[in-house]
Amino acid sequence: MFSFNNDYSEGAHPRILEAMCKYNLEQNNGYGEDAHSLKAKEYIKRHIGREDVDIHFIPGGTQTNMLVISSFLRPHHCVISADTGHINVHETGAVEATGHKVVTIPHVDGKITVEGIAEVQNYHCDEHMVLPRMVYISNTTELGTVYTKDELKGISEYCRNNNLLLFLDGARIASALTCKLNDLTLHDIANLVDVFYIGGTKNGALLGEALVICNDELKEDFRYLIKHRGAMMAKGFVMGMQFEALFEDDLYFKLGEHANILAEKIGLAFRDKGYSFYVPAQTNQLFPILSNEMIERLSKKFLFSIQKKIDNSHSAVRFVTSWATSEESVNALINEI
Amino acid sequence: MFSFNNDYSEGAHPRILEAMCKYNLEQNNGYGEDAHSLKAKEYIKRHIGREDVDIHFIPGGTQTNMLVISSFLRPHHCVISADTGHINVHETGAVEATGHKVVTIPHVDGKITVEGIAEVQNYHCDEHMVLPRMVYISNTTELGTVYTKDELKGISEYCRNNNLLLFLDGARIASALTCKLNDLTLHDIANLVDVFYIGGTKNGALLGEALVICNDELKEDFRYLIKHRGAMMAKGFVMGMQFEALFEDDLYFKLGEHANILAEKIGLAFRDKGYSFYVPAQTNQLFPILSNEMIERLSKKFLFSIQKKIDNSHSAVRFVTSWATSEESVNALINEI
Amino acid sequence: MFSFNNDYSEGAHPRILEAMCKYNLEQNNGYGEDAHSLKAKEYIKRHIGREDVDIHFIPGGTQTNMLVISSFLRPHHCVISADTGHINVHETGAVEATGHKVVTIPHVDGKITVEGIAEVQNYHCDEHMVLPRMVYISNTTELGTVYTKDELKGISEYCRNNNLLLFLDGARIASALTCKLNDLTLHDIANLVDVFYIGGTKNGALLGEALVICNDELKEDFRYLIKHRGAMMAKGFVMGMQFEALFEDDLYFKLGEHANILAEKIGLAFRDKGYSFYVPAQTNQLFPILSNEMIERLSKKFLFSIQKKIDNSHSAVRFVTSWATSEESVNALINEI
Amino acid sequence: MFSFNNDYSEGAHPRILEAMCKYNLEQNNGYGEDAHSLKAKEYIKRHIGREDVDIHFIPGGTQTNMLVISSFLRPHHCVISADTGHINVHETGAVEATGHKVVTIPHVDGKITVEGIAEVQNYHCDEHMVLPRMVYISNTTELGTVYTKDELKGISEYCRNNNLLLFLDGARIASALTCKLNDLTLHDIANLVDVFYIGGTKNGALLGEALVICNDELKEDFRYLIKHRGAMMAKGFVMGMQFEALFEDDLYFKLGEHANILAEKIGLAFRDKGYSFYVPAQTNQLFPILSNEMIERLSKKFLFSIQKKIDNSHSAVRFVTSWATSEESVNALINEI
Repeated sequence: MFSFNNDYSEGAHPRILEAMCKYNLEQNNGYGEDAHSLKAKEYIKRHIGREDVDIHFIPGGTQTNMLVISSFLRPHHCVISADTGHINVHETGAVEATGHKVVTIPHVDGKITVEGIAEVQNYHCDEHMVLPRMVYISNTTELGTVYTKDELKGISEYCRNNNLLLFLDGARIASALTCKLNDLTLHDIANLVDVFYIGGTKNGALLGEALVICNDELKEDFRYLIKHRGAMMAKGFVMGMQFEALFEDDLYFKLGEHANILAEKIGLAFRDKGYSFYVPAQTNQLFPILSNEMIERLSKKFLFSIQKKIDNSHSAVRFVTSWATSEESVNALINEI
Repeated sequence: MFSFNNDYSEGAHPRILEAMCKYNLEQNNGYGEDAHSLKAKEYIKRHIGREDVDIHFIPGGTQTNMLVISSFLRPHHCVISADTGHINVHETGAVEATGHKVVTIPHVDGKITVEGIAEVQNYHCDEHMVLPRMVYISNTTELGTVYTKDELKGISEYCRNNNLLLFLDGARIASALTCKLNDLTLHDIANLVDVFYIGGTKNGALLGEALVICNDELKEDFRYLIKHRGAMMAKGFVMGMQFEALFEDDLYFKLGEHANILAEKIGLAFRDKGYSFYVPAQTNQLFPILSNEMIERLSKKFLFSIQKKIDNSHSAVRFVTSWATSEESVNALINEI
Repeated sequence: MFSFNNDYSEGAHPRILEAMCKYNLEQNNGYGEDAHSLKAKEYIKRHIGREDVDIHFIPGGTQTNMLVISSFLRPHHCVISADTGHINVHETGAVEATGHKVVTIPHVDGKITVEGIAEVQNYHCDEHMVLPRMVYISNTTELGTVYTKDELKGISEYCRNNNLLLFLDGARIASALTCKLNDLTLHDIANLVDVFYIGGTKNGALLGEALVICNDELKEDFRYLIKHRGAMMAKGFVMGMQFEALFEDDLYFKLGEHANILAEKIGLAFRDKGYSFYVPAQTNQLFPILSNEMIERLSKKFLFSIQKKIDNSHSAVRFVTSWATSEESVNALINEI
Repeated sequence: MFSFNNDYSEGAHPRILEAMCKYNLEQNNGYGEDAHSLKAKEYIKRHIGREDVDIHFIPGGTQTNMLVISSFLRPHHCVISADTGHINVHETGAVEATGHKVVTIPHVDGKITVEGIAEVQNYHCDEHMVLPRMVYISNTTELGTVYTKDELKGISEYCRNNNLLLFLDGARIASALTCKLNDLTLHDIANLVDVFYIGGTKNGALLGEALVICNDELKEDFRYLIKHRGAMMAKGFVMGMQFEALFEDDLYFKLGEHANILAEKIGLAFRDKGYSFYVPAQTNQLFPILSNEMIERLSKKFLFSIQKKIDNSHSAVRFVTSWATSEESVNALINEI
């Protein structure tokens, strides 16, 4: 039974595995200080179009989020997130474990707005309340939507004018940057945020997120902080080799595009049949609203998850495509729709 | 230049990589709830000879240490460690980051003794001091030495009689269990400690430590705790496949033995030439005391590290062998000695 | 200018100061192990009508909240609170500083309901989310409202049936227990919750909250935990003497009643003039909704705070009475109304 | 039976209690923003001879230590302390609870040396170890000894040249500044350290430590941090009034001197009888080494504590004098000696 449950069901893109096999018995320095990690960083910097950023490879997304937030905030600082944000809902309190409150804003299609941020800042007016110091956004969001350049610029400007750091969780940035609506580049993002990451796990790697620190003031001692949070892999070169393969050319973006194209086909099939969506279908996560009968029928042939009950006879469900999703499985799903 | 710097310079044992390639495009459940992880756990339980333990795969060693210690202690509890213990020296305060003090005992060849533990307990006599609740040991120790069955039994009994949990860091347990001096089995260890782990990273895997919870009272909600510390991999099957390959038969132990045999050859070569050792040479880490000239000479052909300056003209150095060390490189080193 | 800003503007009730002066040069044991603390605990137990509770004096309320929550939760546990709860809004992230998320429920007149708790539990369904393990309520609430016996019983039963600890913040419990609507006793509360406290700071003491641990399983090592969070006063007898004076007879309750009676007079005056209230006026905190003109006029003679803007020409304000509020100042205010 | 157990057995100096009674029914702003706190800060600044320091009143010493250390360190930073330091031994892991390791140096008569600090810095050489960023000293030390101006200057210079903050715990600074050996002033201290505190609890106040932040870079948002750690008293004026009384003139120093003079008399009595001391007797804590018989005999008439067993027939004991110790009790003790 084919699974549209998520984008981390398969191993690695074949070119990645190939590289890992090729270099397997090479001796490399530990802890990410190896030639492959170095090369991967060079490649990524070239894609970003900036040399002055610091790049670190971190095994997982939750780990990256807690590491970034705890490294750049003082104890009394909080981070602002959409109420749907991964750090707020799906990390078992990993951020709070480092001592920081997550203050939430009601999301608009998974996104936050300048008005929402401003309201939080106005409300937190004295020392009896936490002090907002960072804004966390994700692109694509938890609901598969994307920020436009204008939206990100607006948030970025507000943050810079109001003493807030801007952190972009890019676990699914490949899908964001290659979707039809997108008008952002990696270069834009690096210029608009203080820190972001380029997700490997959900776009063809076995594991690993490439954290990019753009703001000079945040760079100091970061390797200490990685180790301090248990996030420094002895065999860091395992991540280095993977990002080397992903960014040597434009493989990373092709994989994101592949997922988006197949998702679009599925989305159109649902739309053609008159189904509406819980949020606009923009990238590799789709949230069509289906009747219970339809859900039951599709469940016999495909795996997917229930996102939210809409009413007694309908629910929003989630279909996810990935770099590894095949044309055949998508066609089979479309036939069934 | 061949490196004897550590046992995590190379990738994975070929049989592991082979399995990963074979299963690469299989769809697996996320977060370690896949068939390979399940199989691997079965295999490990068979090697342990107990069905009633809980096994979880954790990406890294420091992460496993902080996770275990923070999960099983209440806020006012401390953990007792040898002063040379990894958690005390080489984890950038990762344990303290979770709120717990590491109280140390002077080591004896890298090991701790019942007397040392008792002294700490006696000293910590009231609520103005932290309350010892766990003992952390590693086997092999940071200095490559091993605990005998009698020693481990003694510590275990003391702990059980004195309300202390016993946690064994087995990052290098393969080397411990296959060295000449060893009289312990995985079964013994599981019966004598409350929780321990079987290191993958330093014995042929790309990453991953198999945490074994033996004490029933410690099992509850552990998957929550893994996620809470950022240690739950989306593609947990990557670790599952590796431990499956390592424990399907006795590959894991053969790799440890290989490293020990080569280390022994090197050790004998040093001994034959009259060199003494900083601590007894027992496993895959050797600490001969060499003259500055000898260090300089060997450094031209091999990588290894300085452990400790002994006097102005001598230092203890560290040579490490691994599952991947070749007979040739060892012979080359012996020739040089 | 008389202040109705809060109930902690004055020092201590004269009988407390008297006792402190009387015993001033006595030599007492440190850290709360003195005769006065012992006596005070006996008196409080008598008022509760139970001998089997543990009592500890803690300097402040925020401190007590963070201490209680962090002592009884495991790392992955969260605490449930009304969105208006003190721990959520006015403690600068002190609870999160100990590693725990505060998950909120929309309040109903400052209170939480069984339905709200159940919804949170249902939503938090797997290990990717924090696990609810404690419910935090306050009586009186932040909005001056009180829980009835039926309400508290309902919450208590739900908690006991659903593996949730129930913690009642009683910073203003004197006011709660002596208001007209109240049908709870200290004895009831001790039987219905796992842990609660009897606030001194806001009812006649210079400082100090009497924490009452009712659930046997929570008692172990609590003095360690107090010290661990920096909450153990060297001169603990300073709190002991105060609670001794407050509970030797029924002074504590008389002070609460005094505040309530005066508040009721003020409330009636507002009601008589047709003013409505933001939440029902039940205890020593009143939240009338006043026009901007009225606010401006009253501000010339009295201190009070703005709670919330209602519309462009009205705001809910807060008037607080206390054990120290005089009949004269209340009459002056009423005249002005 | 008279107690020489510690310097926090009695209440407050009569002049303090007098002030508290006098101002008792005054209405004051909460949270330390009252006129008495303001006045007290002015008085202290005058004594320091600097206007540009920030002063905050914190209820307790352990609380002040954990607050200061956690506020000024980043997560991967550690604090260096003498192994006898209060933060290392007698705070139940309160500092580690905020996430920071305490790295220790063997003490010399309770003090640390520049050499000791340098050794710790040299040892902590890479990101696999915590990064030293603060040095914690106390004056007087845990063993009642004092730092000379030269010693403090040496440490201060080393710290400034090596990127280390210097924090002086002055819980017993009154005794330090008024002992015969002392050549330091409050002004000197403020110029040589980054942050220090002036202890109230052990020198005549009911509670309270006056934290003085001298380094401009450490001042920002400190009230947030106080609240965040649960250390902001609602009735902050209770501390304000006490420090007002202590620093209006030189009462604070007279109280310290009183304790020292009486201690000196006791010390001389021991010395005259040929007793030696565990560490030099310099201030209000004395550590004579007594025979078991002598200890038993004195115990019948006085309370004091055993510090450390020296051999089977001797122990070092601790006698403490305070602002409240009477000439008569000292004479009685001397008679017994």
